[in-house]
Amino acid sequence: MNTTELEAIFDELWPLNRSLSGEGNRRSFAILNHYMPFNIREIPSGTTCFDWTIPPEWNVNEAWIKDDKGQKIVDFRDNNLHLLGYSTPIHETMSFEMLCKHLYTLPDFPDAIPYRTSYYSRRWGFCLSQNQFDKLDKTAQYEVLIDSSLDEKGSMTVGEATLKGDSEKCVYLTSYICHPSMANNELSGPLLLLELYQRLKQKHLHYTYKFLLMPETIGSIWYLSEHYQEMLQNTLAGIVLTCVGDRGNFSLKKSRIGDSDIDRIASYYIQQKKGTLIDFFPSGGSDERQYCSPGINLPFCSITRTMYEQYKEYHTSKDNKAFISFESILGSADLLERIIDTLENDEIFINLMPYCEVQLGKRGLYPTLSAVGNKSDELKAMMWLLNYSDGKHSLFDIIQKSNINLDNFLSARNRLLEQHIIKKKS
Amino acid sequence: MNTTELEAIFDELWPLNRSLSGEGNRRSFAILNHYMPFNIREIPSGTTCFDWTIPPEWNVNEAWIKDDKGQKIVDFRDNNLHLLGYSTPIHETMSFEMLCKHLYTLPDFPDAIPYRTSYYSRRWGFCLSQNQFDKLDKTAQYEVLIDSSLDEKGSMTVGEATLKGDSEKCVYLTSYICHPSMANNELSGPLLLLELYQRLKQKHLHYTYKFLLMPETIGSIWYLSEHYQEMLQNTLAGIVLTCVGDRGNFSLKKSRIGDSDIDRIASYYIQQKKGTLIDFFPSGGSDERQYCSPGINLPFCSITRTMYEQYKEYHTSKDNKAFISFESILGSADLLERIIDTLENDEIFINLMPYCEVQLGKRGLYPTLSAVGNKSDELKAMMWLLNYSDGKHSLFDIIQKSNINLDNFLSARNRLLEQHIIKKKS
Amino acid sequence: MNTTELEAIFDELWPLNRSLSGEGNRRSFAILNHYMPFNIREIPSGTTCFDWTIPPEWNVNEAWIKDDKGQKIVDFRDNNLHLLGYSTPIHETMSFEMLCKHLYTLPDFPDAIPYRTSYYSRRWGFCLSQNQFDKLDKTAQYEVLIDSSLDEKGSMTVGEATLKGDSEKCVYLTSYICHPSMANNELSGPLLLLELYQRLKQKHLHYTYKFLLMPETIGSIWYLSEHYQEMLQNTLAGIVLTCVGDRGNFSLKKSRIGDSDIDRIASYYIQQKKGTLIDFFPSGGSDERQYCSPGINLPFCSITRTMYEQYKEYHTSKDNKAFISFESILGSADLLERIIDTLENDEIFINLMPYCEVQLGKRGLYPTLSAVGNKSDELKAMMWLLNYSDGKHSLFDIIQKSNINLDNFLSARNRLLEQHIIKKKS
Repeated sequence: MNTTELEAIFDELWPLNRSLSGEGNRRSFAILNHYMPFNIREIPSGTTCFDWTIPPEWNVNEAWIKDDKGQKIVDFRDNNLHLLGYSTPIHETMSFEMLCKHLYTLPDFPDAIPYRTSYYSRRWGFCLSQNQFDKLDKTAQYEVLIDSSLDEKGSMTVGEATLKGDSEKCVYLTSYICHPSMANNELSGPLLLLELYQRLKQKHLHYTYKFLLMPETIGSIWYLSEHYQEMLQNTLAGIVLTCVGDRGNFSLKKSRIGDSDIDRIASYYIQQKKGTLIDFFPSGGSDERQYCSPGINLPFCSITRTMYEQYKEYHTSKDNKAFISFESILGSADLLERIIDTLENDEIFINLMPYCEVQLGKRGLYPTLSAVGNKSDELKAMMWLLNYSDGKHSLFDIIQKSNINLDNFLSARNRLLEQHIIKKKS
Repeated sequence: MNTTELEAIFDELWPLNRSLSGEGNRRSFAILNHYMPFNIREIPSGTTCFDWTIPPEWNVNEAWIKDDKGQKIVDFRDNNLHLLGYSTPIHETMSFEMLCKHLYTLPDFPDAIPYRTSYYSRRWGFCLSQNQFDKLDKTAQYEVLIDSSLDEKGSMTVGEATLKGDSEKCVYLTSYICHPSMANNELSGPLLLLELYQRLKQKHLHYTYKFLLMPETIGSIWYLSEHYQEMLQNTLAGIVLTCVGDRGNFSLKKSRIGDSDIDRIASYYIQQKKGTLIDFFPSGGSDERQYCSPGINLPFCSITRTMYEQYKEYHTSKDNKAFISFESILGSADLLERIIDTLENDEIFINLMPYCEVQLGKRGLYPTLSAVGNKSDELKAMMWLLNYSDGKHSLFDIIQKSNINLDNFLSARNRLLEQHIIKKKS
Repeated sequence: MNTTELEAIFDELWPLNRSLSGEGNRRSFAILNHYMPFNIREIPSGTTCFDWTIPPEWNVNEAWIKDDKGQKIVDFRDNNLHLLGYSTPIHETMSFEMLCKHLYTLPDFPDAIPYRTSYYSRRWGFCLSQNQFDKLDKTAQYEVLIDSSLDEKGSMTVGEATLKGDSEKCVYLTSYICHPSMANNELSGPLLLLELYQRLKQKHLHYTYKFLLMPETIGSIWYLSEHYQEMLQNTLAGIVLTCVGDRGNFSLKKSRIGDSDIDRIASYYIQQKKGTLIDFFPSGGSDERQYCSPGINLPFCSITRTMYEQYKEYHTSKDNKAFISFESILGSADLLERIIDTLENDEIFINLMPYCEVQLGKRGLYPTLSAVGNKSDELKAMMWLLNYSDGKHSLFDIIQKSNINLDNFLSARNRLLEQHIIKKKS
């Protein structure tokens, strides 16, 4: 896709009120489904998954605060961040003092509306900018309406798309769908998944790719509760994608394992792009906290650009379209594609003529006339591949040692396979 | 203890003529015993211990040099450093030229009296400042008196204090008692042991703590010759404490093993305080040379502030009260206490709910209202502990990974134990 | 040898037309043989060795280009680099345009003649400086003569010299003989081998030393094809020596194994001299590419000063006597000798008195009078050796830990062996 197409999808998704559950999530999937055939499931509220329970389904018709002149001074329709996530219904008139206990602002970032939720404890509240708050009449009475529902018979919507490869071994590419109108810390993830799906579906794939889109935390906990036994068998790698649309450099949060294939490959490319490598930490982050919990411990890393909590706009109304760039999302796709291409081709080869160098010249693979500096990168890749095709070093190991890029290795590998000088390790 | 109390003990100990043996050592132990109940033993001169023999007991009544006017120009009573340690008795009148062969000065540090000894080779001698020496009349005759005794039937005094813990596993805290009037490179060590004894006796201890105070080298050799078989069984860690009273940063000389528990824990805290880590070296130092000899090889490290031989005042009369600070000694005690507290609590736990995260919110352990940056360090410690309570990572491993401090981990651990979410690995 | 002697040998060898084979090589060996008794063998053209075949023997009588006035404008007798290596015979008159296809220059280094060869593909050609080329009359006819022969019944000359040691274990010191008049990238290697031979033959050697001198690549491939089975048994270490005569710092290209004895020892000394350590790479270099091919994988490293391809004069007529220094060659010999001495003495010892320190004083090995800083490096070496003579650490391990030099360790070792305090590990 190009940036215009991505932006059009973004614009459709932006206004929907996403949360752990509800119609906003269903409508979001309906839009995404045009580009990526999700298997969508509804998980009933009340379903238990490990230590957790799927919460009631939350929907909102309207929500506002009116001043004593009947003017709506805060309205959910203006920005769905205005309403505390999972607010219970209320319709009451109250003093400023009473109201105040239910208002959330960011005094240090006075023109931003904060994003706040109370998923597992019943509350109501409104979020507004400090500037808006400061203008409120402290002596007035306010009429508060939240026409919301918390349906114990509802459900949580989750989606999974699959691209089958030759192997049952799976690579999981995940993001989440649960934040209302936020750009980097919500929509950049699903948009990157769409783009990757488009790119990968055109390739002959060795591994199977599963694209997971669910509410953060409770979604992955539910998914693991259903699938962890099979995932312990079939997982080659997982990548949690979030905050991948801003203009910053990449960060890799490694898996808890720390040196799995995906950790090593992602580290290599992210370092090449002057990105930051961060060891796994469980005290914050996204769904990798679940995939890397001690009883599960799958090789799931997480790739971001500027990491959550590291930018001021995070979890505010300022994490908006202006904050991200669609070029950045495509740049993130380029990085992920390179990582995936490397993973797909990371095989071990055996040199069938391992005693001294193969005479490449007589096979048309080496210049017959000597000259300083006359070796192409492909020829160098060939010499590296021949030397390290010892049944122990994988293609990525050799890329790392040589710092020659994948494309040169792929053509070198093909030539050497054609000439029966190397074979794949069985 | 506070600095006033430490200073009072220092002032009592300061003038005593300590050496490998003799009344000065006995009187020193008598003072220390008020604060720390030592088991004091007298080891007979002539006792063999490995390749060594306990030397005769040395005592001095008086020692001086008089000029030809009968004036005492160097007097042991002024400063016990004036007398070469283990000087043999003499009473003779001699020329300056003859006397000269028995005088020791420091030409590069002209107002300091050097500290010199000749424990295992019979000699007599006087140490004086270069300035004093320069004033001597080169043409005069000098009367020399050393009224000392070297008693083959004497003994060497050694002391050991014990704080019993639940476990037979021992932590050895050692310093030495053998230098006459020196502050950093003698008294700072015993004073730190006193302070640590006071602090530890108020705690419920898991391990047993042995405080050893003996003459350097020959003392630890004797101790090992009696105890090494049992020490090979029961030693968890040892720390040799010397030069812990000056105002410099800490240094850790690691044990010969290099990565034992005490090496890792002490390294962590000393690096945190911008200290220096030094690999074990056998070519200089203190009693760790014996504890880390190849047939013994116990996990004994050594902690100092400015290391011996690294400061100009070392082994001179300038290593005096002005050179040290009693606040520094208490600061050293703080560091040692933190190391010991960490060692005491360095257990491995098992998360009993290891599949995905535990839902801390419903247990009152997690804020129910989302907000950026709303996790306390204790909550973060809890999340780290839960994730790494996998039966492989000890509490200290997790402290190191997270850089969250011990106190937060102790309260997090207690809460999780209470709620039966983790248990100690048996 | 001194620099004058080395220079005399250099001057004799310089003008000879060395290549993969031919009289130039034989004459070179005849000169070298005065200083080092080579076992010289002739390997018939057509002999196969692994994937390769010994090429026909190449000899040249004369070779020139004459302009239409009959003037020799390029003449092999002026500089044997003028002729493309392994040029086929020709005698023809042709246009500038035709001639041009057979001329090689270096436009970016206009006063240097390049060195080019075409060993395995039949061609003829001349190399000349860009300045010479620019002066050619583009409209003239040129007479070209190459009176060369490529004899399928000829042979390739190889040489091996041996210094027998007590052990069958071998250290291989290799360079090559195949480039015509070049100084750093040809003659510095054989000259260093001569010097090392002279130095080593005066020593009692523990290991056996083999000095190999053969054409690069095809020579070592032939040698391995004959000897690799025995080399897999007897090789302790190998060092490929090339470009060891310029004024630059040293570089070590490590063996493919990377941490063999020779890698570790050479790394230590080359780092001490501010040299560069380079991991093994198969995409360029010298005979280590063969010794380190995956089926062979011997611990062969390569030591250079400024590495091939890293200096502008490489493979040109400017790699001449002015470019190198005979002092540099002797400096390279000093480094190699230190590496070899360390390897020879890199034994493991066992302290027979491992409980606490040995009382060195009573054995006359320790000062009886204490003083700050009174330990000699030899005494320190003794203390290190005693502590680490635990059956696990070799002498070189201890040198590395202590940073005290080999000589001090050798005298300390001898004293401790004499006094039966340590013994060699059997």
